[in-house]
Amino acid sequence: MSGYTAPSTGMTVRAVLFDTFGTVVDWRSGIAAAVGSFAHSHGLALDPGAFADAWRGLYIPSMARVRSGERPFASLDVLHRENLVTALRSHGIDPGDFASAELDALAKAWHFLPPWPDSVLGILELKRAFIVGPLSNGNTSLLLDMAKASGLAWDVILGSDVSQAYKPDPDAYLKPVAMLGLEPGEVMLAAAHNGDLAAARAVGLATGFIARPHERGRDQKVGVTPTADWDVSTTSIVDLARRMS
Amino acid sequence: MSGYTAPSTGMTVRAVLFDTFGTVVDWRSGIAAAVGSFAHSHGLALDPGAFADAWRGLYIPSMARVRSGERPFASLDVLHRENLVTALRSHGIDPGDFASAELDALAKAWHFLPPWPDSVLGILELKRAFIVGPLSNGNTSLLLDMAKASGLAWDVILGSDVSQAYKPDPDAYLKPVAMLGLEPGEVMLAAAHNGDLAAARAVGLATGFIARPHERGRDQKVGVTPTADWDVSTTSIVDLARRMS
Repeated sequence: MSGYTAPSTGMTVRAVLFDTFGTVVDWRSGIAAAVGSFAHSHGLALDPGAFADAWRGLYIPSMARVRSGERPFASLDVLHRENLVTALRSHGIDPGDFASAELDALAKAWHFLPPWPDSVLGILELKRAFIVGPLSNGNTSLLLDMAKASGLAWDVILGSDVSQAYKPDPDAYLKPVAMLGLEPGEVMLAAAHNGDLAAARAVGLATGFIARPHERGRDQKVGVTPTADWDVSTTSIVDLARRMS
Repeated sequence: MSGYTAPSTGMTVRAVLFDTFGTVVDWRSGIAAAVGSFAHSHGLALDPGAFADAWRGLYIPSMARVRSGERPFASLDVLHRENLVTALRSHGIDPGDFASAELDALAKAWHFLPPWPDSVLGILELKRAFIVGPLSNGNTSLLLDMAKASGLAWDVILGSDVSQAYKPDPDAYLKPVAMLGLEPGEVMLAAAHNGDLAAARAVGLATGFIARPHERGRDQKVGVTPTADWDVSTTSIVDLARRMS
Protein backbone atom coordinates (compact mmCIF):
# COMPACT_ATOMS: atom_id res chain seq x y z
CA MET A 1 0.00 0.00 0.00
CA SER A 2 1.02 3.54 -0.68
CA GLY A 3 2.17 5.87 2.01
CA TYR A 4 0.77 8.98 0.36
CA THR A 5 -0.36 11.50 2.96
CA ALA A 6 -2.44 14.46 1.82
CA PRO A 7 -1.00 17.77 3.06
CA SER A 8 -4.46 19.28 3.58
CA THR A 9 -5.72 16.53 5.86
CA GLY A 10 -2.61 14.84 7.24
CA MET A 11 -4.28 11.51 6.47
CA THR A 12 -3.14 8.56 4.40
CA VAL A 13 -5.14 8.33 1.20
CA ARG A 14 -6.63 4.88 0.52
CA ALA A 15 -8.90 5.62 -2.44
CA VAL A 16 -8.69 7.97 -5.42
CA LEU A 17 -12.11 8.69 -6.91
CA PHE A 18 -12.49 10.57 -10.17
CA ASP A 19 -14.83 13.06 -11.65
CA THR A 20 -15.40 11.48 -15.06
CA PHE A 21 -16.95 13.86 -17.63
CA GLY A 22 -14.06 16.08 -18.62
CA THR A 23 -11.55 14.61 -16.16
CA VAL A 24 -11.33 10.98 -17.32
CA VAL A 25 -13.17 11.14 -20.64
CA ASP A 26 -13.43 13.73 -23.40
CA TRP A 27 -17.19 14.26 -23.44
CA ARG A 28 -17.12 17.02 -26.08
CA SER A 29 -15.31 14.98 -28.74
CA GLY A 30 -17.42 11.91 -28.01
CA ILE A 31 -20.74 13.71 -28.11
CA ALA A 32 -19.78 15.77 -31.16
CA ALA A 33 -18.88 12.56 -33.01
CA ALA A 34 -22.20 10.93 -32.11
CA VAL A 35 -24.14 14.08 -33.02
CA GLY A 36 -22.23 14.40 -36.29
CA SER A 37 -23.09 10.84 -37.22
CA PHE A 38 -26.75 11.38 -36.30
CA ALA A 39 -26.90 14.63 -38.28
CA HIS A 40 -25.29 13.02 -41.30
CA SER A 41 -27.67 10.07 -41.37
CA HIS A 42 -30.69 12.39 -41.10
CA GLY A 43 -29.38 15.11 -43.43
CA LEU A 44 -29.42 17.74 -40.68
CA ALA A 45 -27.30 20.88 -40.89
CA LEU A 46 -25.77 20.99 -37.42
CA ASP A 47 -22.43 22.07 -35.97
CA PRO A 48 -21.67 18.96 -33.90
CA GLY A 49 -19.36 20.74 -31.45
CA ALA A 50 -21.81 23.57 -30.87
CA PHE A 51 -24.64 21.07 -30.39
CA ALA A 52 -22.53 19.13 -27.89
CA ASP A 53 -21.94 22.38 -25.98
CA ALA A 54 -25.65 23.19 -26.00
CA TRP A 55 -26.59 19.70 -24.80
CA ARG A 56 -23.95 19.79 -22.08
CA GLY A 57 -25.08 23.32 -21.17
CA LEU A 58 -28.37 21.88 -19.94
CA TYR A 59 -26.61 19.45 -17.59
CA ILE A 60 -26.12 21.64 -14.53
CA PRO A 61 -29.57 23.31 -14.70
CA SER A 62 -31.25 19.90 -15.03
CA MET A 63 -29.43 18.55 -11.97
CA ALA A 64 -30.20 21.76 -10.10
CA ARG A 65 -33.92 20.95 -10.31
CA VAL A 66 -33.21 17.64 -8.59
CA ARG A 67 -30.84 19.18 -6.07
CA SER A 68 -33.37 21.85 -5.09
CA GLY A 69 -36.10 19.26 -4.57
CA GLU A 70 -38.17 20.70 -7.41
CA ARG A 71 -38.37 17.15 -8.76
CA PRO A 72 -37.54 13.75 -7.26
CA PHE A 73 -34.22 12.11 -8.03
CA ALA A 74 -33.93 11.24 -11.71
CA SER A 75 -30.88 9.47 -13.11
CA LEU A 76 -28.46 11.22 -15.40
CA ASP A 77 -29.63 8.93 -18.23
CA VAL A 78 -33.11 10.40 -17.82
CA LEU A 79 -31.76 13.96 -17.69
CA HIS A 80 -29.54 13.47 -20.76
CA ARG A 81 -32.50 12.10 -22.72
CA GLU A 82 -34.74 15.02 -21.70
CA ASN A 83 -31.98 17.53 -22.40
CA LEU A 84 -31.48 16.08 -25.88
CA VAL A 85 -35.08 16.91 -26.73
CA THR A 86 -34.59 20.45 -25.41
CA ALA A 87 -31.34 20.90 -27.33
CA LEU A 88 -32.92 19.69 -30.56
CA ARG A 89 -35.81 22.14 -30.17
CA SER A 90 -33.42 25.01 -29.42
CA HIS A 91 -31.73 24.20 -32.74
CA GLY A 92 -35.08 24.36 -34.53
CA ILE A 93 -35.32 20.61 -34.93
CA ASP A 94 -38.52 18.77 -34.05
CA PRO A 95 -37.69 15.73 -31.88
CA GLY A 96 -40.92 14.18 -33.14
CA ASP A 97 -39.24 13.73 -36.53
CA PHE A 98 -37.24 10.80 -35.14
CA ALA A 99 -38.10 7.41 -33.75
CA SER A 100 -37.85 7.37 -29.96
CA ALA A 101 -35.31 4.53 -30.15
CA GLU A 102 -33.04 6.70 -32.32
CA LEU A 103 -33.02 9.44 -29.71
CA ASP A 104 -32.45 6.83 -26.99
CA ALA A 105 -29.41 5.58 -28.91
CA LEU A 106 -28.04 9.10 -29.37
CA ALA A 107 -28.50 9.86 -25.66
CA LYS A 108 -26.59 6.68 -24.90
CA ALA A 109 -23.50 8.24 -26.47
CA TRP A 110 -22.82 9.56 -22.95
CA HIS A 111 -22.07 5.92 -21.99
CA PHE A 112 -19.33 5.56 -24.58
CA LEU A 113 -17.10 8.61 -24.36
CA PRO A 114 -13.41 8.33 -25.26
CA PRO A 115 -10.88 8.56 -22.42
CA TRP A 116 -8.10 11.14 -22.49
CA PRO A 117 -4.84 9.54 -23.64
CA ASP A 118 -3.42 9.17 -20.10
CA SER A 119 -6.59 7.92 -18.36
CA VAL A 120 -6.44 4.14 -18.86
CA LEU A 121 -2.78 3.82 -17.92
CA GLY A 122 -2.94 6.32 -15.06
CA ILE A 123 -5.87 4.53 -13.44
CA LEU A 124 -4.08 1.17 -13.81
CA GLU A 125 -1.00 2.60 -12.09
CA LEU A 126 -3.00 4.12 -9.23
CA LYS A 127 -4.89 0.82 -8.84
CA ARG A 128 -1.71 -0.88 -7.64
CA ALA A 129 -1.67 1.18 -4.46
CA PHE A 130 -5.14 2.67 -4.11
CA ILE A 131 -8.80 1.84 -4.55
CA VAL A 132 -9.84 3.56 -7.78
CA GLY A 133 -13.33 4.45 -8.90
CA PRO A 134 -15.45 7.18 -10.43
CA LEU A 135 -17.15 9.84 -8.29
CA SER A 136 -19.43 11.14 -10.96
CA ASN A 137 -22.90 12.47 -11.54
CA GLY A 138 -23.26 9.59 -13.99
CA ASN A 139 -25.45 6.64 -13.04
CA THR A 140 -23.92 3.24 -12.40
CA SER A 141 -24.86 1.65 -15.73
CA LEU A 142 -23.48 4.62 -17.66
CA LEU A 143 -20.18 4.44 -15.78
CA LEU A 144 -20.04 0.67 -16.21
CA ASP A 145 -20.60 0.84 -19.98
CA MET A 146 -17.92 3.52 -20.21
CA ALA A 147 -15.46 1.42 -18.23
CA LYS A 148 -16.09 -1.77 -20.22
CA ALA A 149 -15.79 0.04 -23.56
CA SER A 150 -12.60 1.92 -22.68
CA GLY A 151 -10.77 -0.38 -20.29
CA LEU A 152 -11.02 1.92 -17.28
CA ALA A 153 -9.99 -0.57 -14.59
CA TRP A 154 -12.13 0.74 -11.74
CA ASP A 155 -12.20 -1.31 -8.56
CA VAL A 156 -15.69 -0.14 -7.71
CA ILE A 157 -18.42 1.90 -9.40
CA LEU A 158 -20.94 3.72 -7.23
CA GLY A 159 -22.94 6.05 -9.45
CA SER A 160 -25.11 8.96 -8.43
CA ASP A 161 -28.09 6.58 -8.44
CA VAL A 162 -26.49 4.87 -5.43
CA SER A 163 -25.98 8.09 -3.46
CA GLN A 164 -29.18 9.60 -4.90
CA ALA A 165 -27.33 12.90 -4.86
CA TYR A 166 -25.65 15.13 -7.41
CA LYS A 167 -22.38 16.97 -6.89
CA PRO A 168 -21.70 19.40 -5.36
CA ASP A 169 -24.16 18.24 -2.67
CA PRO A 170 -22.24 16.88 0.34
CA ASP A 171 -24.02 13.52 0.13
CA ALA A 172 -22.63 12.97 -3.36
CA TYR A 173 -19.15 12.80 -1.80
CA LEU A 174 -19.90 11.44 1.66
CA LYS A 175 -22.20 8.54 0.78
CA PRO A 176 -19.67 6.78 -1.48
CA VAL A 177 -16.94 7.40 1.10
CA ALA A 178 -19.08 5.74 3.77
CA MET A 179 -19.90 2.79 1.51
CA LEU A 180 -16.18 2.21 1.02
CA GLY A 181 -15.84 2.01 4.80
CA LEU A 182 -13.45 4.97 4.77
CA GLU A 183 -13.14 8.39 6.39
CA PRO A 184 -13.43 11.44 4.10
CA GLY A 185 -9.74 12.22 4.57
CA GLU A 186 -8.83 8.75 3.30
CA VAL A 187 -10.36 9.56 -0.08
CA MET A 188 -9.02 11.90 -2.75
CA LEU A 189 -11.29 13.42 -5.36
CA ALA A 190 -9.40 13.92 -8.64
CA ALA A 191 -11.08 16.41 -10.95
CA ALA A 192 -10.46 18.97 -13.66
CA HIS A 193 -12.95 21.35 -12.07
CA ASN A 194 -12.05 23.68 -9.22
CA GLY A 195 -15.65 23.90 -7.99
CA ASP A 196 -15.93 20.14 -7.64
CA LEU A 197 -12.68 20.05 -5.68
CA ALA A 198 -13.79 22.91 -3.44
CA ALA A 199 -16.99 21.05 -2.55
CA ALA A 200 -15.03 17.85 -1.86
CA ARG A 201 -12.54 19.71 0.34
CA ALA A 202 -15.38 21.35 2.25
CA VAL A 203 -16.52 17.93 3.45
CA GLY A 204 -13.03 16.68 4.26
CA LEU A 205 -11.73 14.89 1.18
CA ALA A 206 -8.21 15.20 -0.20
CA THR A 207 -8.05 16.83 -3.63
CA GLY A 208 -6.17 16.36 -6.88
CA PHE A 209 -6.47 18.81 -9.80
CA ILE A 210 -5.87 17.51 -13.31
CA ALA A 211 -5.80 20.21 -15.97
CA ARG A 212 -7.81 19.35 -19.08
CA PRO A 213 -7.22 22.38 -21.30
CA HIS A 214 -9.21 20.99 -24.23
CA GLU A 215 -12.30 19.80 -22.36
CA ARG A 216 -14.36 22.61 -23.88
CA GLY A 217 -12.59 22.62 -27.21
CA ARG A 218 -9.39 24.06 -28.55
CA ASP A 219 -10.06 27.67 -27.52
CA GLN A 220 -10.93 27.02 -23.87
CA LYS A 221 -9.82 29.90 -21.68
CA VAL A 222 -11.19 29.28 -18.19
CA GLY A 223 -10.86 26.48 -15.69
CA VAL A 224 -7.53 25.21 -16.90
CA THR A 225 -5.47 26.19 -13.87
CA PRO A 226 -5.88 25.32 -10.20
CA THR A 227 -7.44 28.12 -8.15
CA ALA A 228 -6.46 26.76 -4.73
CA ASP A 229 -3.67 24.79 -3.08
CA TRP A 230 -5.08 21.37 -3.92
CA ASP A 231 -3.08 18.47 -2.48
CA VAL A 232 -1.81 17.66 -5.96
CA SER A 233 -2.14 19.76 -9.12
CA THR A 234 -1.01 18.19 -12.35
CA THR A 235 -1.78 17.66 -16.03
CA SER A 236 -2.38 13.90 -16.31
CA ILE A 237 -3.52 10.88 -14.33
CA VAL A 238 -0.22 9.16 -15.06
CA ASP A 239 1.58 12.06 -13.39
CA LEU A 240 -0.88 11.99 -10.49
CA ALA A 241 0.03 8.32 -9.94
CA ARG A 242 3.74 9.19 -10.04
CA ARG A 243 3.36 11.97 -7.50
CA MET A 244 1.41 9.78 -5.11
CA SER A 245 3.81 6.82 -5.29
CA MET B 1 -19.94 -9.79 -27.05
CA SER B 2 -21.12 -13.27 -26.30
CA GLY B 3 -24.14 -14.74 -27.90
CA TYR B 4 -25.00 -16.93 -24.91
CA THR B 5 -28.75 -17.42 -24.63
CA ALA B 6 -30.13 -18.93 -21.45
CA PRO B 7 -32.47 -21.88 -22.15
CA SER B 8 -34.77 -21.00 -19.25
CA THR B 9 -35.43 -17.44 -20.40
CA GLY B 10 -34.59 -17.39 -24.11
CA MET B 11 -32.71 -14.15 -23.47
CA THR B 12 -29.14 -13.18 -24.20
CA VAL B 13 -27.15 -12.93 -20.98
CA ARG B 14 -25.21 -9.67 -20.59
CA ALA B 15 -24.01 -9.97 -16.98
CA VAL B 16 -22.92 -12.85 -14.77
CA LEU B 17 -23.23 -12.03 -11.07
CA PHE B 18 -21.83 -14.33 -8.41
CA ASP B 19 -22.77 -15.44 -4.99
CA THR B 20 -19.45 -15.01 -3.22
CA PHE B 21 -19.24 -16.84 0.15
CA GLY B 22 -18.78 -20.45 -0.85
CA THR B 23 -19.10 -19.89 -4.61
CA VAL B 24 -16.14 -17.59 -5.31
CA VAL B 25 -14.23 -17.78 -2.03
CA ASP B 26 -13.58 -20.53 0.50
CA TRP B 27 -15.00 -18.90 3.61
CA ARG B 28 -14.44 -21.92 5.86
CA SER B 29 -10.70 -22.19 5.23
CA GLY B 30 -10.26 -18.44 5.48
CA ILE B 31 -12.20 -18.04 8.70
CA ALA B 32 -10.64 -21.16 10.28
CA ALA B 33 -7.17 -19.75 9.53
CA ALA B 34 -8.01 -16.40 11.12
CA VAL B 35 -9.64 -18.06 14.13
CA GLY B 36 -6.68 -20.41 14.50
CA SER B 37 -4.28 -17.49 14.54
CA PHE B 38 -6.44 -15.60 17.05
CA ALA B 39 -6.73 -18.68 19.28
CA HIS B 40 -2.99 -19.30 19.16
CA SER B 41 -2.07 -15.74 20.09
CA HIS B 42 -4.50 -15.79 23.04
CA GLY B 43 -3.75 -19.35 24.18
CA LEU B 44 -7.33 -20.49 23.56
CA ALA B 45 -8.22 -24.15 23.04
CA LEU B 46 -10.52 -23.93 20.00
CA ASP B 47 -11.18 -26.12 16.99
CA PRO B 48 -10.85 -23.45 14.26
CA GLY B 49 -13.01 -25.31 11.72
CA ALA B 50 -15.78 -25.96 14.24
CA PHE B 51 -15.66 -22.34 15.36
CA ALA B 52 -15.87 -21.18 11.73
CA ASP B 53 -18.95 -23.38 11.30
CA ALA B 54 -20.55 -21.99 14.46
CA TRP B 55 -19.86 -18.39 13.41
CA ARG B 56 -21.21 -19.04 9.92
CA GLY B 57 -24.19 -20.84 11.45
CA LEU B 58 -25.39 -17.54 12.87
CA TYR B 59 -25.32 -15.86 9.45
CA ILE B 60 -28.76 -16.83 8.14
CA PRO B 61 -30.61 -16.29 11.44
CA SER B 62 -29.02 -12.85 11.83
CA MET B 63 -30.09 -11.82 8.32
CA ALA B 64 -33.55 -13.27 8.94
CA ARG B 65 -34.10 -10.68 11.68
CA VAL B 66 -33.39 -7.95 9.13
CA ARG B 67 -35.47 -9.61 6.42
CA SER B 68 -38.47 -9.98 8.72
CA GLY B 69 -38.30 -6.32 9.71
CA GLU B 70 -37.52 -7.23 13.32
CA ARG B 71 -34.60 -4.81 13.05
CA PRO B 72 -33.64 -2.14 10.50
CA PHE B 73 -31.13 -2.95 7.80
CA ALA B 74 -27.70 -3.64 9.29
CA SER B 75 -24.69 -4.37 7.11
CA LEU B 76 -23.10 -7.80 7.04
CA ASP B 77 -20.03 -6.29 8.72
CA VAL B 78 -22.24 -5.40 11.68
CA LEU B 79 -23.86 -8.84 11.72
CA HIS B 80 -20.52 -10.67 11.50
CA ARG B 81 -19.19 -8.62 14.42
CA GLU B 82 -22.27 -9.33 16.55
CA ASN B 83 -22.22 -13.00 15.60
CA LEU B 84 -18.57 -13.28 16.62
CA VAL B 85 -19.50 -12.23 20.14
CA THR B 86 -22.31 -14.80 20.20
CA ALA B 87 -20.05 -17.55 18.86
CA LEU B 88 -17.36 -16.81 21.43
CA ARG B 89 -19.91 -16.97 24.26
CA SER B 90 -21.30 -20.27 22.91
CA HIS B 91 -17.76 -21.64 23.14
CA GLY B 92 -17.50 -20.54 26.78
CA ILE B 93 -15.22 -17.62 25.96
CA ASP B 94 -15.91 -14.16 27.38
CA PRO B 95 -15.66 -11.56 24.58
CA GLY B 96 -14.85 -9.01 27.27
CA ASP B 97 -11.45 -10.66 27.65
CA PHE B 98 -10.30 -9.05 24.38
CA ALA B 99 -9.80 -5.50 23.20
CA SER B 100 -12.64 -4.41 20.94
CA ALA B 101 -10.15 -3.66 18.16
CA GLU B 102 -8.94 -7.27 18.28
CA LEU B 103 -12.46 -8.56 17.73
CA ASP B 104 -12.95 -5.97 14.96
CA ALA B 105 -9.84 -7.30 13.26
CA LEU B 106 -10.98 -10.91 13.58
CA ALA B 107 -14.41 -10.05 12.17
CA LYS B 108 -12.69 -8.38 9.25
CA ALA B 109 -11.34 -11.78 8.20
CA TRP B 110 -14.58 -12.03 6.19
CA HIS B 111 -13.11 -9.32 3.91
CA PHE B 112 -10.04 -11.37 3.07
CA LEU B 113 -11.18 -14.89 2.20
CA PRO B 114 -9.18 -16.99 -0.26
CA PRO B 115 -10.72 -17.62 -3.70
CA TRP B 116 -11.21 -21.15 -4.98
CA PRO B 117 -8.42 -22.08 -7.41
CA ASP B 118 -10.52 -21.41 -10.55
CA SER B 119 -12.19 -18.16 -9.44
CA VAL B 120 -9.68 -15.49 -10.49
CA LEU B 121 -9.09 -16.95 -13.95
CA GLY B 122 -12.73 -17.86 -14.56
CA ILE B 123 -13.92 -14.34 -13.75
CA LEU B 124 -11.24 -12.86 -16.03
CA GLU B 125 -12.40 -15.09 -18.88
CA LEU B 126 -16.07 -14.23 -18.39
CA LYS B 127 -15.15 -10.53 -18.19
CA ARG B 128 -14.17 -10.56 -21.88
CA ALA B 129 -17.76 -11.14 -22.96
CA PHE B 130 -19.94 -10.29 -19.94
CA ILE B 131 -20.27 -7.79 -17.15
CA VAL B 132 -19.02 -9.59 -14.03
CA GLY B 133 -19.73 -8.73 -10.41
CA PRO B 134 -20.72 -10.18 -7.07
CA LEU B 135 -24.35 -10.61 -6.03
CA SER B 136 -23.71 -11.23 -2.41
CA ASN B 137 -25.07 -10.54 1.03
CA GLY B 138 -21.70 -8.92 1.71
CA ASN B 139 -21.51 -5.14 1.94
CA THR B 140 -19.66 -3.15 -0.71
CA SER B 141 -16.51 -2.47 1.31
CA LEU B 142 -16.20 -6.15 2.24
CA LEU B 143 -16.52 -7.21 -1.40
CA LEU B 144 -14.08 -4.52 -2.49
CA ASP B 145 -11.43 -5.55 0.05
CA MET B 146 -11.88 -9.17 -1.05
CA ALA B 147 -11.49 -8.26 -4.71
CA LYS B 148 -8.40 -6.10 -4.18
CA ALA B 149 -6.69 -8.73 -2.01
CA SER B 150 -7.42 -11.65 -4.35
CA GLY B 151 -7.42 -10.09 -7.80
CA LEU B 152 -11.11 -10.76 -8.52
CA ALA B 153 -11.51 -8.51 -11.57
CA TRP B 154 -15.12 -7.44 -11.03
CA ASP B 155 -16.49 -4.80 -13.36
CA VAL B 156 -18.88 -3.52 -10.73
CA ILE B 157 -19.55 -4.14 -7.04
CA LEU B 158 -23.01 -3.47 -5.66
CA GLY B 159 -23.17 -4.89 -2.15
CA SER B 160 -26.24 -5.61 -0.07
CA ASP B 161 -25.86 -2.16 1.48
CA VAL B 162 -26.76 -0.74 -1.94
CA SER B 163 -29.90 -2.86 -2.35
CA GLN B 164 -30.62 -2.74 1.41
CA ALA B 165 -31.86 -6.28 1.02
CA TYR B 166 -30.58 -9.76 1.81
CA LYS B 167 -30.97 -12.78 -0.41
CA PRO B 168 -33.29 -14.54 -1.00
CA ASP B 169 -35.51 -11.43 -0.92
CA PRO B 170 -36.51 -10.45 -4.48
CA ASP B 171 -35.06 -6.93 -4.05
CA ALA B 172 -31.62 -8.42 -3.43
CA TYR B 173 -31.66 -9.68 -7.03
CA LEU B 174 -33.83 -7.09 -8.76
CA LYS B 175 -32.27 -3.89 -7.44
CA PRO B 176 -28.75 -4.65 -8.75
CA VAL B 177 -30.25 -5.79 -12.06
CA ALA B 178 -32.08 -2.47 -12.39
CA MET B 179 -28.96 -0.48 -11.49
CA LEU B 180 -27.10 -2.23 -14.29
CA GLY B 181 -29.84 -1.04 -16.66
CA LEU B 182 -30.68 -4.65 -17.55
CA GLU B 183 -33.73 -6.92 -17.57
CA PRO B 184 -33.69 -9.85 -15.11
CA GLY B 185 -33.33 -12.32 -17.98
CA GLU B 186 -30.16 -10.55 -19.13
CA VAL B 187 -28.45 -11.44 -15.84
CA MET B 188 -27.24 -14.84 -14.68
CA LEU B 189 -26.75 -15.62 -11.02
CA ALA B 190 -23.90 -18.09 -10.55
CA ALA B 191 -23.98 -19.84 -7.20
CA ALA B 192 -23.09 -23.04 -5.39
CA HIS B 193 -26.40 -23.00 -3.54
CA ASN B 194 -29.61 -24.36 -5.02
CA GLY B 195 -31.81 -22.19 -2.81
CA ASP B 196 -30.11 -19.01 -4.00
CA LEU B 197 -30.57 -20.08 -7.62
CA ALA B 198 -34.23 -20.96 -7.04
CA ALA B 199 -34.88 -17.48 -5.64
CA ALA B 200 -33.07 -15.86 -8.57
CA ARG B 201 -35.03 -17.95 -11.09
CA ALA B 202 -38.29 -17.04 -9.38
CA VAL B 203 -37.69 -13.38 -10.25
CA GLY B 204 -36.56 -14.08 -13.79
CA LEU B 205 -32.77 -14.39 -13.72
CA ALA B 206 -30.77 -17.00 -15.62
CA THR B 207 -28.96 -19.45 -13.37
CA GLY B 208 -25.59 -21.20 -13.22
CA PHE B 209 -24.75 -23.85 -10.63
CA ILE B 210 -21.13 -24.30 -9.62
CA ALA B 211 -20.52 -27.30 -7.36
CA ARG B 212 -18.27 -26.53 -4.40
CA PRO B 213 -18.03 -29.90 -2.66
CA HIS B 214 -15.61 -28.70 0.01
CA GLU B 215 -17.38 -25.49 1.02
CA ARG B 216 -18.38 -27.03 4.35
CA GLY B 217 -15.23 -29.07 4.78
CA ARG B 218 -13.99 -32.41 3.50
CA ASP B 219 -16.99 -34.46 4.61
CA GLN B 220 -19.74 -32.30 3.10
CA LYS B 221 -22.68 -34.42 2.01
CA VAL B 222 -25.47 -32.04 0.97
CA GLY B 223 -25.77 -29.27 -1.55
CA VAL B 224 -23.07 -30.51 -3.89
CA THR B 225 -25.33 -31.41 -6.81
CA PRO B 226 -27.83 -29.35 -8.76
CA THR B 227 -31.43 -29.97 -7.73
CA ALA B 228 -33.03 -28.36 -10.80
CA ASP B 229 -32.37 -27.82 -14.49
CA TRP B 230 -30.29 -24.68 -14.06
CA ASP B 231 -29.18 -23.07 -17.33
CA VAL B 232 -25.64 -24.27 -16.68
CA SER B 233 -24.45 -26.72 -14.05
CA THR B 234 -20.72 -27.18 -13.69
CA THR B 235 -17.83 -27.55 -11.26
CA SER B 236 -15.74 -24.42 -11.87
CA ILE B 237 -15.99 -20.81 -13.03
CA VAL B 238 -13.44 -21.54 -15.77
CA ASP B 239 -15.75 -24.21 -17.13
CA LEU B 240 -18.74 -21.86 -16.80
CA ALA B 241 -16.87 -19.36 -19.00
CA ARG B 242 -16.12 -22.08 -21.54
CA ARG B 243 -19.74 -23.20 -21.72
CA MET B 244 -20.98 -19.66 -22.21
CA SER B 245 -18.48 -18.76 -24.92
